Amino acid sequence: MLITSRENYIIKDYIKLAQNKKYRYETKRFVIEGARLVKDAVLSGVNIEAAFFKETAMQKHNELYNFLLEKKIKIYIINAILAEKLADTQTTQGIFCIAFMLDKEILLDRIDIDGVYLSLEGIQEPGNLGTMLRTADAFGFNGIILSEGCADIYSPKVLRAAMGAIFRLPFMFTDNLAETIKILNEKGMNSLAAVADSSANDILSERIQGGNIVAIGNEGNGLSQNVINSCSKKVTIRMRGHAESLNAAAAASVLMWELTKANNKV
Amino acid sequence: MLITSRENYIIKDYIKLAQNKKYRYETKRFVIEGARLVKDAVLSGVNIEAAFFKETAMQKHNELYNFLLEKKIKIYIINAILAEKLADTQTTQGIFCIAFMLDKEILLDRIDIDGVYLSLEGIQEPGNLGTMLRTADAFGFNGIILSEGCADIYSPKVLRAAMGAIFRLPFMFTDNLAETIKILNEKGMNSLAAVADSSANDILSERIQGGNIVAIGNEGNGLSQNVINSCSKKVTIRMRGHAESLNAAAAASVLMWELTKANNKV
Repeated sequence: MLITSRENYIIKDYIKLAQNKKYRYETKRFVIEGARLVKDAVLSGVNIEAAFFKETAMQKHNELYNFLLEKKIKIYIINAILAEKLADTQTTQGIFCIAFMLDKEILLDRIDIDGVYLSLEGIQEPGNLGTMLRTADAFGFNGIILSEGCADIYSPKVLRAAMGAIFRLPFMFTDNLAETIKILNEKGMNSLAAVADSSANDILSERIQGGNIVAIGNEGNGLSQNVINSCSKKVTIRMRGHAESLNAAAAASVLMWELTKANNKV
Repeated sequence: MLITSRENYIIKDYIKLAQNKKYRYETKRFVIEGARLVKDAVLSGVNIEAAFFKETAMQKHNELYNFLLEKKIKIYIINAILAEKLADTQTTQGIFCIAFMLDKEILLDRIDIDGVYLSLEGIQEPGNLGTMLRTADAFGFNGIILSEGCADIYSPKVLRAAMGAIFRLPFMFTDNLAETIKILNEKGMNSLAAVADSSANDILSERIQGGNIVAIGNEGNGLSQNVINSCSKKVTIRMRGHAESLNAAAAASVLMWELTKANNKV
């Protein structure tokens, strides 16, 4: 079916889902842009309400087009002007879909106390959040514990930076991260607060074993004192260069690597 | 001195420097935005041609204002409308300067063959490039070897993500990265090509010693075959999660960490 009008209800619906977090959660739907991400979503079990192909993209990504047809997904054809209107990227492939959120939320009592979890407090920059989720997925983390004040995992920019990690990782959402960490400590987990503080424990001298949570704080302010206090210990990345100068996603990469590298050998 | 017109020549000069790479290199100047970065530049020995303060920023960042006055730097006061016009960020502090490029270019024969260098091929995304430079600076890398096709280190977005690393790190620019690496190999350096290829050497099993270069490739395509062939060996980060799924800056963080962590203990 061909859509040419930007007043079409489903085009308006897409744009509202892309821009409006509240609407996403009210309708439990979100949008996905790009051939790779759309395919990844379908393969990860995400249900698709509708897909959109720019006319030229239909030929260029014929394989994906046929794959979606086989899955009996409703596909709309749109012109280049509408594709520009839906696009979050500057050079769009012209492939989009409206998807239903997966029910991947984990509750506190479902956290695997022998697993490895990334806990994020107030990560506001979508690119940083997406990069951290992508790295956690790559390193085989068991899940993510997200505080309030983080960017929305279903926003287009986070989805793009996370490269499909959203579809695979389990998430726990909490409005009291310190309390959540305390409860998990009592269950026997170890929790590490990442700080830029030379008096904290060097991550290299930690013996990593059993269930672990690593907590990373806001880009500008770091972790709140409350969350730091709730953790078993403070850890830091020692640097001989310029002090306190890793960005949150780079620090998270190094800490996640140190927590899982022994397991990452294949 | 107060400027209110956007037709003022120095305002136009600032905007041209912010937007136009060719003009930056012709005049050997660039622009810096933000209190922290401007201060960092002055402390790192960058010469400032002129600084700009939004009226309200003059009070809010009084210490920096006085610091620049003491350094006899010419300061222009601008109104909020002009500050918006100069800003590269959405919520600007209203502090800007025009600076002269440092002469930090290193030639091939000045590379310390016992040092550790990050070599980048075609890193196009300014945020990625800036993050890698910031991490290299934090981990005490001796310098950066940049191929053609990388984002400009003096562009506003790279400068912001690099958080002052540009002012401290030495850079070598090459239009033939493979040849440069070959020459450094012959001088006794070890060179590691980062690849997402499970047949490559696990970075964890490398014995890192002596002078090393780690080469990281373009976000989408990785390193060119030419550069891979010029390196002593291929290395990879083994992952048990989703395959090939680290972004370039996250992979670079882990590899730089592995190359320097023994030295980073203080």
